[in-house]
Amino acid sequence: MFLHTKNFDEQKAKAMESLRKALAENKVDEDIVSLLEKINALENYFTTSSCSGRISVMEMPHFGDKVNSVWLGKWHREVSVEEVLEAIGRHRSGQLWFLVRSPILHVGARTMDDAVRLLNLAIGLGFKYSSIKSVSHKKLLVEIRSTERMDVPLGENGELWVSEEYIKRIVAIANSQVRRFKGKLKRLEEEIEKL
Amino acid sequence: MFLHTKNFDEQKAKAMESLRKALAENKVDEDIVSLLEKINALENYFTTSSCSGRISVMEMPHFGDKVNSVWLGKWHREVSVEEVLEAIGRHRSGQLWFLVRSPILHVGARTMDDAVRLLNLAIGLGFKYSSIKSVSHKKLLVEIRSTERMDVPLGENGELWVSEEYIKRIVAIANSQVRRFKGKLKRLEEEIEKL
Repeated sequence: MFLHTKNFDEQKAKAMESLRKALAENKVDEDIVSLLEKINALENYFTTSSCSGRISVMEMPHFGDKVNSVWLGKWHREVSVEEVLEAIGRHRSGQLWFLVRSPILHVGARTMDDAVRLLNLAIGLGFKYSSIKSVSHKKLLVEIRSTERMDVPLGENGELWVSEEYIKRIVAIANSQVRRFKGKLKRLEEEIEKL
Repeated sequence: MFLHTKNFDEQKAKAMESLRKALAENKVDEDIVSLLEKINALENYFTTSSCSGRISVMEMPHFGDKVNSVWLGKWHREVSVEEVLEAIGRHRSGQLWFLVRSPILHVGARTMDDAVRLLNLAIGLGFKYSSIKSVSHKKLLVEIRSTERMDVPLGENGELWVSEEYIKRIVAIANSQVRRFKGKLKRLEEEIEKL
């Protein structure tokens, strides 16, 4: 038996304090703030971390070494080809990747029933990679995540493997993914109060 | 309250029957069979579906239309550049993608304690995207999944956007991802009996 239901109110208070701090320091993706507020207004849920989804250009010193990875460009919105080319221009060493990541929200739930209700709502609204991320005495955490994603190798150690024409193509696809997941976030915000 | 613990033995019997059929029809990835057997030998778990991870070349008629997607090539192992080029050669229309997917296992657990024990073991062995995928009266399902993944657009409607040199590069990266996740599967098989 896990005690997260017993510890819910204490954990929610802590998470709300962290959120206030993060908001004051401008560390929360702007376009997701109103959704977080709606979730936190619900009695049986609270948010612990979130990203509204992003396109990025990343330099990775060695394959899989996320710790020492550097973002050369990161956007929580559609991008222009020029912005991406500018980020690529800052590449010097390691592996160069073009990435798209879906929005991701971690939400604490009071009971397993509450967790499953949120999980099923999210999946129904297109967040098909949603799951119960962890269960412990402290927290019962639902992860809300969607399927949009790109992982495209662009080059290595200063050498570019693809053409500018190719960058245009993948930026167009990435932007259509961004439109898709922003639409899902909007629907989630509309539906979340029904929980 | 969910009744999956009460229904566990019945659901496990059904799943074992399905697995026997799938094995007889050669529908299970060979290199994962011994791991499945070890999990199913445990009292409190059973497998419902699995993939040992794969590299593929896929044609998608419209963006996001998975239903009508066609695999031009699919391999549950490292591939040669020639095999990938041959698959690409069969491309005619729609969007053409080069994909890598991590192994994925769905495992029913008897109780939430059992589910969390398996989840934490899997995460500890590098299957960092593992989670509790669903909770219902019928089943409590753990998903074991790793981080390796590539989603690389290659072309559209018969037109190729990248060079043969680029294909060589991404095949090398994909093969190193395959080696990585096969190693994780091996460690999982070694550790699973400790559950």
